Amino acid sequence: MKKIIGVLGGMGPAATLDAMEKIIKNTPATCDQEHIPVIAISFPDIPDRTASILSGGESPLNKMLAALRILEAAGAQCIIMPCNTAHYWYDELRVSTKAHFLNIIDITCNKIVSEGVNNIAILATTGTIKANLYQDRLRKENVRFVIPDDIQQGVIMDSILAYKSGDGERAYQLLKPVIYQLKNIGVERFIMGCTEIPVILRKDCDKKEYIDATEELVRCAIDWC
Amino acid sequence: MKKIIGVLGGMGPAATLDAMEKIIKNTPATCDQEHIPVIAISFPDIPDRTASILSGGESPLNKMLAALRILEAAGAQCIIMPCNTAHYWYDELRVSTKAHFLNIIDITCNKIVSEGVNNIAILATTGTIKANLYQDRLRKENVRFVIPDDIQQGVIMDSILAYKSGDGERAYQLLKPVIYQLKNIGVERFIMGCTEIPVILRKDCDKKEYIDATEELVRCAIDWC
Repeated sequence: MKKIIGVLGGMGPAATLDAMEKIIKNTPATCDQEHIPVIAISFPDIPDRTASILSGGESPLNKMLAALRILEAAGAQCIIMPCNTAHYWYDELRVSTKAHFLNIIDITCNKIVSEGVNNIAILATTGTIKANLYQDRLRKENVRFVIPDDIQQGVIMDSILAYKSGDGERAYQLLKPVIYQLKNIGVERFIMGCTEIPVILRKDCDKKEYIDATEELVRCAIDWC
Repeated sequence: MKKIIGVLGGMGPAATLDAMEKIIKNTPATCDQEHIPVIAISFPDIPDRTASILSGGESPLNKMLAALRILEAAGAQCIIMPCNTAHYWYDELRVSTKAHFLNIIDITCNKIVSEGVNNIAILATTGTIKANLYQDRLRKENVRFVIPDDIQQGVIMDSILAYKSGDGERAYQLLKPVIYQLKNIGVERFIMGCTEIPVILRKDCDKKEYIDATEELVRCAIDWC
């Protein structure tokens, strides 16, 4: 059997499905048996990541570690975690497993650097932004990037929460004006740096404009397997 | 934490995703944490079910049992297997686990009987049809049903295999004429009795015409949890 991809998911459930769908779409296969084996854990009760980063709410780490233990015991050899904000705890997770644990932030930044992209805006949760998950690496690589202002960031977060509450249309209607505003100040590309964002923007498939962190993560996992 | 649904999947990978998507859609939730925890195993190298039933090819049972062991060890309390044909081995699987193992055929037939549906055609793999998985129960309940003729059944199977090979459009174009032919001989409703079929027919959402076995299975699992 091929190597097994373990999906540490549920943050949120729809983003987990999106990652699994991208595994299927990016795998050349002519029958069931040629696809990559996947074990996915979707435990949506993992405490809110942004709340924990911003206001010291309950840490999600213990529940993420428990999910990681299950994936390891089940035989997963390559772990992906389709939640950018959760990568705030990446180091603790990585050192606790012998499996190959991919880092969505590193992989996405590698893509940006290798393509020489600049004037890029980060679309992410307020937790991801405040924790500087993308900014630290992009600064080091001298990539010119834009962070949404506080009002825009509030709208982006509302959009993500609207999607998580089941209102995909409201999520889309909130997010699109922010994207137009950012384009008006010279932004050329966007990091979909929250795994809900490719799901919210599903009907806009302009691959040139968006760098989809989930897609980059999944491609890396498939290459490894 | 809520009870955990275990998805014994990979037959095929897209049908597994469809079941997981239906778990999310049928769960009333206003944030991540209100969703139902799911562990999904998508091991696509489980041997072909129809080939095993029709021509005694390698049995998928051992690999299905191995996947079931993983789900149990991971804490799954309610097992669903989004593959109708795989239910040929349901009895062996059910007696080997203490988890609550739902039966997609029984649940779908219960729905048909409770709604008093008649003049229904079974859209399924040739393995499901030849094994009489649906017919035995429907006959017992005096439901009037139609089995596609051999030529139609060949086309249905080609459609399912086309989808599994990644050609969704061809799958759709093959299946639709068979559905029209069946309507012309008086069929009023259709059992989507292969979990690939709701995925192939995704753009046709006439809920009245189709009874989606995957959807019925998932609703039952959510009720149980």
